[in-house]
Amino acid sequence: MAGRQIGVGGVGRYTVVISRLGRPRHNGRVDYQELLHDVMDTARRTPGRGRPADYIPALASADPEAFGVALATVDGEVYGAGDWERPFSIQSISKLFTLALALAEGGDDLWKRVGREPSGNPFNSLVQLETEHGIPRNPFINAGALVVTDRLLELSGDAAGAVREFLRAESGNELISTDDTVAASEARHGHRNAALAHFIASYGNLRNPVDSVLAHYYAHCAISASCRDLALVGRFLARHGLRADGSRLLTRSEAKRVNAVLLTCGTYDAAGEFAFRVGLPGKSGVGGGVLAVLPGRGAVCVWSPGLDTAGNSVLGVAALDALTTATGWSVF
Amino acid sequence: MAGRQIGVGGVGRYTVVISRLGRPRHNGRVDYQELLHDVMDTARRTPGRGRPADYIPALASADPEAFGVALATVDGEVYGAGDWERPFSIQSISKLFTLALALAEGGDDLWKRVGREPSGNPFNSLVQLETEHGIPRNPFINAGALVVTDRLLELSGDAAGAVREFLRAESGNELISTDDTVAASEARHGHRNAALAHFIASYGNLRNPVDSVLAHYYAHCAISASCRDLALVGRFLARHGLRADGSRLLTRSEAKRVNAVLLTCGTYDAAGEFAFRVGLPGKSGVGGGVLAVLPGRGAVCVWSPGLDTAGNSVLGVAALDALTTATGWSVF
Amino acid sequence: MAGRQIGVGGVGRYTVVISRLGRPRHNGRVDYQELLHDVMDTARRTPGRGRPADYIPALASADPEAFGVALATVDGEVYGAGDWERPFSIQSISKLFTLALALAEGGDDLWKRVGREPSGNPFNSLVQLETEHGIPRNPFINAGALVVTDRLLELSGDAAGAVREFLRAESGNELISTDDTVAASEARHGHRNAALAHFIASYGNLRNPVDSVLAHYYAHCAISASCRDLALVGRFLARHGLRADGSRLLTRSEAKRVNAVLLTCGTYDAAGEFAFRVGLPGKSGVGGGVLAVLPGRGAVCVWSPGLDTAGNSVLGVAALDALTTATGWSVF
Amino acid sequence: MAGRQIGVGGVGRYTVVISRLGRPRHNGRVDYQELLHDVMDTARRTPGRGRPADYIPALASADPEAFGVALATVDGEVYGAGDWERPFSIQSISKLFTLALALAEGGDDLWKRVGREPSGNPFNSLVQLETEHGIPRNPFINAGALVVTDRLLELSGDAAGAVREFLRAESGNELISTDDTVAASEARHGHRNAALAHFIASYGNLRNPVDSVLAHYYAHCAISASCRDLALVGRFLARHGLRADGSRLLTRSEAKRVNAVLLTCGTYDAAGEFAFRVGLPGKSGVGGGVLAVLPGRGAVCVWSPGLDTAGNSVLGVAALDALTTATGWSVF
Repeated sequence: MAGRQIGVGGVGRYTVVISRLGRPRHNGRVDYQELLHDVMDTARRTPGRGRPADYIPALASADPEAFGVALATVDGEVYGAGDWERPFSIQSISKLFTLALALAEGGDDLWKRVGREPSGNPFNSLVQLETEHGIPRNPFINAGALVVTDRLLELSGDAAGAVREFLRAESGNELISTDDTVAASEARHGHRNAALAHFIASYGNLRNPVDSVLAHYYAHCAISASCRDLALVGRFLARHGLRADGSRLLTRSEAKRVNAVLLTCGTYDAAGEFAFRVGLPGKSGVGGGVLAVLPGRGAVCVWSPGLDTAGNSVLGVAALDALTTATGWSVF
Repeated sequence: MAGRQIGVGGVGRYTVVISRLGRPRHNGRVDYQELLHDVMDTARRTPGRGRPADYIPALASADPEAFGVALATVDGEVYGAGDWERPFSIQSISKLFTLALALAEGGDDLWKRVGREPSGNPFNSLVQLETEHGIPRNPFINAGALVVTDRLLELSGDAAGAVREFLRAESGNELISTDDTVAASEARHGHRNAALAHFIASYGNLRNPVDSVLAHYYAHCAISASCRDLALVGRFLARHGLRADGSRLLTRSEAKRVNAVLLTCGTYDAAGEFAFRVGLPGKSGVGGGVLAVLPGRGAVCVWSPGLDTAGNSVLGVAALDALTTATGWSVF
Repeated sequence: MAGRQIGVGGVGRYTVVISRLGRPRHNGRVDYQELLHDVMDTARRTPGRGRPADYIPALASADPEAFGVALATVDGEVYGAGDWERPFSIQSISKLFTLALALAEGGDDLWKRVGREPSGNPFNSLVQLETEHGIPRNPFINAGALVVTDRLLELSGDAAGAVREFLRAESGNELISTDDTVAASEARHGHRNAALAHFIASYGNLRNPVDSVLAHYYAHCAISASCRDLALVGRFLARHGLRADGSRLLTRSEAKRVNAVLLTCGTYDAAGEFAFRVGLPGKSGVGGGVLAVLPGRGAVCVWSPGLDTAGNSVLGVAALDALTTATGWSVF
Repeated sequence: MAGRQIGVGGVGRYTVVISRLGRPRHNGRVDYQELLHDVMDTARRTPGRGRPADYIPALASADPEAFGVALATVDGEVYGAGDWERPFSIQSISKLFTLALALAEGGDDLWKRVGREPSGNPFNSLVQLETEHGIPRNPFINAGALVVTDRLLELSGDAAGAVREFLRAESGNELISTDDTVAASEARHGHRNAALAHFIASYGNLRNPVDSVLAHYYAHCAISASCRDLALVGRFLARHGLRADGSRLLTRSEAKRVNAVLLTCGTYDAAGEFAFRVGLPGKSGVGGGVLAVLPGRGAVCVWSPGLDTAGNSVLGVAALDALTTATGWSVF
């Protein structure tokens, strides 16, 4: 992994000045380390903490006080604060990686099998799927992610393995792997996802057996990684498709389009609210992580297990809100 | 209209070079005039033209060959090509202005009465309104625009008048006014909007009489303005809330948030597709106009009456797609 | 008016014997008077009373203790107990009469404009109407009743007047009329119905102006009549289409079909429950009345203003349940 | 098995006289044999034949010309015409038997897990299930039948076996059994049902493993039986709960209630239409069979594989329409 890391307690090279105009500056540069601490402080003033996801025991037992944030720049520097190096279950954040990999390996054919419109419905809704004849509205609702997983399985032969390899390579952390306990727990409590997969299969929109698709889906959702890891990985979208090693994963146009889908669909049925408050492309998971892209600048990942009613991390969204409010880094 | 015009009395200073990388450059500067012609040429290669809206005669008789584009920079320059000075019915583009004015005059209270999530349903759907107890999902579906109109009427005493005044002031065109024939035709064929308004009223979410709200709604939708006019008006969002005269209409944060709502909800049930292809905050109308914001740069308005099945101008979206493909000006 | 009346405190000609088999018998005959008292007693043991409709003041102020029942036989005898001669607002029970009159005067053409399937949705829902392009699912949801009213207005020139005349003729009670206070109150609070009417009109499924249709709709819903009146009127369905004077209103087949629609759709979204418990064709109104048909035997009307969550009279349904349990008069 | 059989070509004991009033009479008695021939002749004049179900090969290959009808009286006589003794796949007609057996063995607790309202949606819809949190609307939509199957499996240990035993006992035909080819084919093409079962399980409304429930569901749907068999079986509902051997399966009240659910929910999303045209409690299957109850008289079963768009046999419904039109045996 390229770049130097500056951890909790490290010394930032820059001094932050939150200017009148809401932009932190010092000789034109930002003290990212101080910025992250400020952002966490601001977020902690948010009333309420939500509750960790409780549909499987492995998630319900998450530490509700955990809170971390990491920021990786396009140049390969990474900054962090709080529990930024503690692994958590990435859950739906993995959907971003399956999408990128399926596009990288298979191109636009994917879009014949999944749409790119916000759903206007909770993330695991079957209703819209029925109305639209088995074509999920976008790749980030569960139904869409199952189709993308199926596509990646078709292309790579090992969808979950492809995601793990990608995360390891981009983060430089070879220890990233699936938490088998979480994956098994998801499978045991996975009637809703099994229903979705069978329903999609009933429209002929799965190429692999339902059980294989579900197994790979649970396996990539149950990957454990830290804010640090995910911020480093997320840079490929900030770098318009370039991987950490400089090779191209996505074309510039594809990368922008993935960002667009993230912004309009990445945070369940609260994508409008997230765009309104944060103004960045981002993907959340019920493990409490949120990975956001700062196009041209870097990527930031926040983690705190307490969720709001839409399934997004309360402190995570608050921290990103604070970040873009302080810096003006919203894409708008 | 052919030729290069550089509006509001200015003289174009730039030469366009569409580079391999899809970015027009000349000594770091863009020849906007040539850019617009290129964009129109590219758009014209799109297969299909769609059909003008036909629910009222006044719109159905629009010239299907009409096509114009205008770009206004944050500095006040304006460039145009094709039918860029020919007035058309702005229709739903007016919803952007009612929103901005209602926020400017009344602040965040508006958001108690209307949401900011994509609808996932056609623009005039009653379904979601019923599920969500009379709170429209966002200000740009018809239901939401009726609530915003009601709010502006409450705040200003003359919602349609406030919009007209705003458009005149920002564009410098004192001739901008409501086409009464169109407004009357809308009213005559307006059972769907009347249904929406009564339905919202049944939930107590209108403050003024249904008939007044509808009359103001029809009157601001039926305003005629040109691409040139609208591009000039749209600059207030590119300038983060500053009006043409330098006074502040919206705070920086409000302006960014309006852009966010435009991006996620501005083009009916095709907002995801628009973000994917164009990557700009934008608002379309069934008159065939699309106004898009280039944050920090300016605003661009395209007009061509042929609509796709989602109600957006076929050539308009194609032209904006070509624009951001050529320039890289997507927000992502 | 034909038949002899036996009122509260009157002496029945028959003695009731509730047999083991649940059938009241005495020399093969039923003591209707005693039966009605038994039925009221049984119903009063139902836990809960519900609440009167409160969407308009005129209904909200109904006496929650009021309770009456009347039974009219095909031979023209009428029996009653409790508040059986006290007029109440018939509300949606009027929809049964508009349907019968529209069929009598215009025949099967009506069925091109309204369906006859249960709605599976609350009675004033707009959702299904949208899915099914302006054809209401059945004549007894509000949307369908508006179309039937429009049809009767088209056929008769005075829909509400036609209903009043019919009720007067069948009941022999010339005093039956619209309660103008109630009608005016309905109109004032009628945004939901106005929404429905405009919505249907937007699909071209109203022939008369929306305001006229609504006025007639409110006027026939606001008719005041008693259990006695309505039981007498209801006999035309028990007599397979024959009016009180022996003339034919509906063919035998039409009368049976109206009964079928009553059974499957007559009690809002609780038609299945009503069929299950009571097993008779019936129509309820939010005024607390329920009129049920005993094919070949007669008609029974119950009234008590407290409603369940589906909008049906709690005591009314309980009384009819008790009636068919005691007598075996369910159609099944 | 009780009763004497009179088959095709047999001589009826009665002479049919279709009177002016639409009632066949001769000395007050009906010549059932002639009646059935008349009914088939009338039905054959219906334009269109529909198409056999084609979602599995075993059903798609059904003989489209097959047409039979059988009528069994409460006294145990049975009459038939056409292909009345030819076995066909009973499919959803089996849902009537699982319901009766689950009620007989487990009583009213079933109704906590499944409703009894018409669905207003196609028979395999997931939408309503989602809205109503895993409680299917009624026992005859697929979702409800899965819950009933689960209940019967819980009560009996062998749901499909219990249905087979019941059919054999009531019909006297020991050869009635599951067609394993059809059951296997259903399972192979059963993604929609698997989706429903998992979806219900996600709400905790299945007690047995999803795979067991599905296996029993496919096994009872794939039972082969003839019109003769089914008419004989159906008598228990005409006899208010009494089995062929005189023992009681359901109480009188339960039997009436099952009839009520049949009438309001037994023919998919066309229950209103079926009640309107036929006016009898009935259950159809996509194999082309329809079993209808004549309360107090007997049961009639019709079979012809061509289905209408709602999934009901075209000739089957037409024949039952002709039957009640000719005889006046509608419950209304």
